[in-house]
Amino acid sequence: MEVDDIKTSKVVLLSKRPKGLPDSSTFQLVERDIPELKDGEVLIQSLYLSVDPYMRGRMSAAKSYAEPFQVGEPLTGGIVGKVVKSKAANLAEGDYVTARLDWAEYNVVHENKLRKINPELAPITTALYVLGMPGLTAYFGLLDIGQPKKGETVVISGAAGAVGMIVGQIAKLKGCRVVGIAGSEEKIAYLKNKLGFDAVINYKTTENISEELAAVCPDGIDVYYDNVGGTITDAVIFQMNFHARVVICGQIAHYNDTKMGMGPRFLPYVLTRSILIKGFIVGNYADRIEEGRKELAEWLKQGKITYEENIVTGLENAPDAFLGLFRGDNLGKQLVRIEH
Amino acid sequence: MEVDDIKTSKVVLLSKRPKGLPDSSTFQLVERDIPELKDGEVLIQSLYLSVDPYMRGRMSAAKSYAEPFQVGEPLTGGIVGKVVKSKAANLAEGDYVTARLDWAEYNVVHENKLRKINPELAPITTALYVLGMPGLTAYFGLLDIGQPKKGETVVISGAAGAVGMIVGQIAKLKGCRVVGIAGSEEKIAYLKNKLGFDAVINYKTTENISEELAAVCPDGIDVYYDNVGGTITDAVIFQMNFHARVVICGQIAHYNDTKMGMGPRFLPYVLTRSILIKGFIVGNYADRIEEGRKELAEWLKQGKITYEENIVTGLENAPDAFLGLFRGDNLGKQLVRIEH
Repeated sequence: MEVDDIKTSKVVLLSKRPKGLPDSSTFQLVERDIPELKDGEVLIQSLYLSVDPYMRGRMSAAKSYAEPFQVGEPLTGGIVGKVVKSKAANLAEGDYVTARLDWAEYNVVHENKLRKINPELAPITTALYVLGMPGLTAYFGLLDIGQPKKGETVVISGAAGAVGMIVGQIAKLKGCRVVGIAGSEEKIAYLKNKLGFDAVINYKTTENISEELAAVCPDGIDVYYDNVGGTITDAVIFQMNFHARVVICGQIAHYNDTKMGMGPRFLPYVLTRSILIKGFIVGNYADRIEEGRKELAEWLKQGKITYEENIVTGLENAPDAFLGLFRGDNLGKQLVRIEH
Repeated sequence: MEVDDIKTSKVVLLSKRPKGLPDSSTFQLVERDIPELKDGEVLIQSLYLSVDPYMRGRMSAAKSYAEPFQVGEPLTGGIVGKVVKSKAANLAEGDYVTARLDWAEYNVVHENKLRKINPELAPITTALYVLGMPGLTAYFGLLDIGQPKKGETVVISGAAGAVGMIVGQIAKLKGCRVVGIAGSEEKIAYLKNKLGFDAVINYKTTENISEELAAVCPDGIDVYYDNVGGTITDAVIFQMNFHARVVICGQIAHYNDTKMGMGPRFLPYVLTRSILIKGFIVGNYADRIEEGRKELAEWLKQGKITYEENIVTGLENAPDAFLGLFRGDNLGKQLVRIEH
């Protein structure tokens, strides 16, 4: 199809706010008109769309670090696309760009909101992963909050997810003993055999996670990078060493909670062990993003870190790909490819 | 009595490890021989003895930041005393000293373990309070972890205790809105009228602490200095602002727990608000103690901070004074005076 014939775009809207676990009725696929380009704007053809657990938070009305999605309005997320029409000074047709955009086949956006990517430096999907939000989240959370030192023990929950597998590799680069917690034998095998984790725990098949942790962390736990929360986190926290650091990156076990969960009170332990717990989002490091991206790109180039992508095809399958994050479908980064 | 006639000393032993709340059977008062002085040692006559909530932890066998007390052995704690006999090069009879010593009328100690205090600079009891462990705990916890900024809201639990009332005054010096939580009308009146706290909450008479907190913290809570834990802390944490800091100094609500308490899971909230939680003990700041003591002494001298002491008399009453900490008896620092 000629670009001038592209008049409409499919787009995914938030149909209604989910109570508990979202399902297909949370989303609505509609067709909308594509507006005319104004000066400075480009038309972007979506190529890859990122689905991320944090988006569940934005589906609720509650105040959080990101504005809630509005019912009847498009979902937005990380997208890599190609400029197919330009009225912008610094972007030409054929350029690859990334930004947080509507979940749509096409977006019209001002060039100021886009970051150009060089497809020769790394595969374009890395802009949504190792060199994008998940990679930077792993980098700053582990290094700035976790402060891992050589010989220390780092435990990661959600270790085979997009962020977790990068965290583990960076921790290995820093000379740490790395223990991953994940939920399938495929994930466990990947972490152990492909990424060289020192120990792995399948939380779905391990009867007593606390005992298993104690067995594989004979020197206790110095850094805990938490993507999950809940009972896994309970088990880890009570085995942390003096001056240990807990990085709260995700709490996927709780994103669909409809009431406040109850758990063991660990603050007395936090006190007697001088433990630090810190929640964060990558946006807290806005002024250091380029520093992080540069180091991650270097590691990637040198083959010091690797990654896995789980790709489904078709915008219409994006909602189910998102729901799959809560089923634990994905090994590594979940992406949606948009074909044109 | 001539000093050479002093052959024995009363001392308080840990009689048995308490299960739950300690009582009088936890302690045993005995008489022991005073050993001969060796070179470098002095004989110290105890004048004031400090009772502190953290000592409860040392009565249990569990590993913590301080070594457990041993059953049948003396309790130890902060003591201010006078040198009555010296074989030490740098301490003479009549000198005032402080250290962590046995709960006894007399101690024989090497001079290296003692800090000499100048009774002309400040009352000698301040060595156990504002210029000692509790004052330094307030200072470093609030300033280093809490990082209060002008105009921010600081909430303090156990606000009328030894540490809490110093924290509140330092926070006022830093230009913060200060809200204290305490457990009696006498304490509430003191914090409000004498120390100028901006708002106070009596947790024993307030029906809904969350609602009251919301009313007196219209801009949310930026720093929470926690001496207490439990349901008070639950109420505070869920009203904390983005990038708020929680200083875990004490958890007196839990020191006598015989099983793990359960409470609301707040880590999802810690995540979405980028909250920091940090447990600490003053010993973490060992290399900055003199810096803290100097600034506290300056504030004290200038009348910028004041304090209250609650004093009982007699070593035999030290156990009950300690138990009173858990009854909430004390406004300010609880001390025991030893008369000779």
